[in-house]
Amino acid sequence: MDVSTVKALTFDVFGTVVDWRSTIISEGVELRKAKGINVDWALFADAWRAEYEPSMNLVRRGGLPWRNIDALHRMILERLLIEFKIEGLSEAEKDDLNRVWHRLRPWPDVIGGLKRMRKRFIVAALSNGNIALLVNMAKHAGLPWDCVLSSELAKHYKPDPEVYQTAADLLGLRPDQVMMVAAHKHDLRGAQAVGFKTAFVPRPTEFGPHRTPDLTPDPSFDLVARDLKDLADKLGV
Amino acid sequence: MDVSTVKALTFDVFGTVVDWRSTIISEGVELRKAKGINVDWALFADAWRAEYEPSMNLVRRGGLPWRNIDALHRMILERLLIEFKIEGLSEAEKDDLNRVWHRLRPWPDVIGGLKRMRKRFIVAALSNGNIALLVNMAKHAGLPWDCVLSSELAKHYKPDPEVYQTAADLLGLRPDQVMMVAAHKHDLRGAQAVGFKTAFVPRPTEFGPHRTPDLTPDPSFDLVARDLKDLADKLGV
Repeated sequence: MDVSTVKALTFDVFGTVVDWRSTIISEGVELRKAKGINVDWALFADAWRAEYEPSMNLVRRGGLPWRNIDALHRMILERLLIEFKIEGLSEAEKDDLNRVWHRLRPWPDVIGGLKRMRKRFIVAALSNGNIALLVNMAKHAGLPWDCVLSSELAKHYKPDPEVYQTAADLLGLRPDQVMMVAAHKHDLRGAQAVGFKTAFVPRPTEFGPHRTPDLTPDPSFDLVARDLKDLADKLGV
Repeated sequence: MDVSTVKALTFDVFGTVVDWRSTIISEGVELRKAKGINVDWALFADAWRAEYEPSMNLVRRGGLPWRNIDALHRMILERLLIEFKIEGLSEAEKDDLNRVWHRLRPWPDVIGGLKRMRKRFIVAALSNGNIALLVNMAKHAGLPWDCVLSSELAKHYKPDPEVYQTAADLLGLRPDQVMMVAAHKHDLRGAQAVGFKTAFVPRPTEFGPHRTPDLTPDPSFDLVARDLKDLADKLGV
């Protein structure tokens, strides 16, 4: 495709840029050592993530007033602590566990790929994560964003059109000058509906070894890449 | 002062981080060569900047609906083109001239100072400039922001309290965990009113050789520094 009109690349973060599942599992193992909490952290991570979309959908459909992802993660965590029979955590320890989402680790191709793309394009996060989460994550992981954008700025969650339109407006660009990069087809379709270009970067292991997400690219996507280094190749940078 | 509770430093940009006056003058000289436009670019820069606060105040007091700085700069530019008898610019050339504010150059201490402060603190722009302007400027000048925040996100201009409160909220911090850094006392007083810490970094030559701005620090400011390297020293980084 002709990418000469593209000025900015906006990246989905959870799953596309960072590997939430393996980070939560490895922090859980540390918590087991430190606090003797003995749960199956893979199950715990999957349960936490499973409630993510339903909780956002509750907000999207007006069942809950606006609240950011830190607040939704915490709401889910409170239920999981009961369900997984995790006891004895102080408020500070619960808050720290909730902030594991601020410390997620990138896939191995991410930093190299972003640095290459950044030479030609504005590279911006465009995540359902809140700004504080994304800024803390970027510092922790060394993600070289030019700009951190979030659903929080539109007070709507992806794939609502307001999120993508707000991002283009804030970047001072027309939607067709922006390319959304994501591992999830519904995110790209939401971006397309507003007029963004799209790049699909499937992450087959995002949900662990027992899930087989549908990774067939939609023929309408402008680019499909194996990872962010491959995307940089395909963008010619 | 004890800075152990400070997590983020938010920086005013025009005047504090970048030298708008000398950049506009030097781009004007280029325009003279390229287009034969013969005006006193120092007078032009000063006239453009002189209308900046009144135009924001018009928005702040409800005399104009919300519009961002690119739009206000353009509104002023249209009047200046008549006043300075500058003719023959195409729409694309006017737009490019208006975007000189996206290409402003930092003071010589800025990049080194920000890099040092970034090791310990979140360093964020918090400017009346719009996000697109700030992101383009950061790429152009190599400003290593962790995060670009703007009055645009609050749809209020500094020193309205909404701007500072929105920034703290988006960073997930209490106001007393944030220090505003600025060359202008009214900006610091606005931040103080919300509970921010303050650092005053006077820039004696911001307005050129013929203006003598009041640079006496207010005793209530938490820190006073000569430039951003001196501020890094005073913050112990």
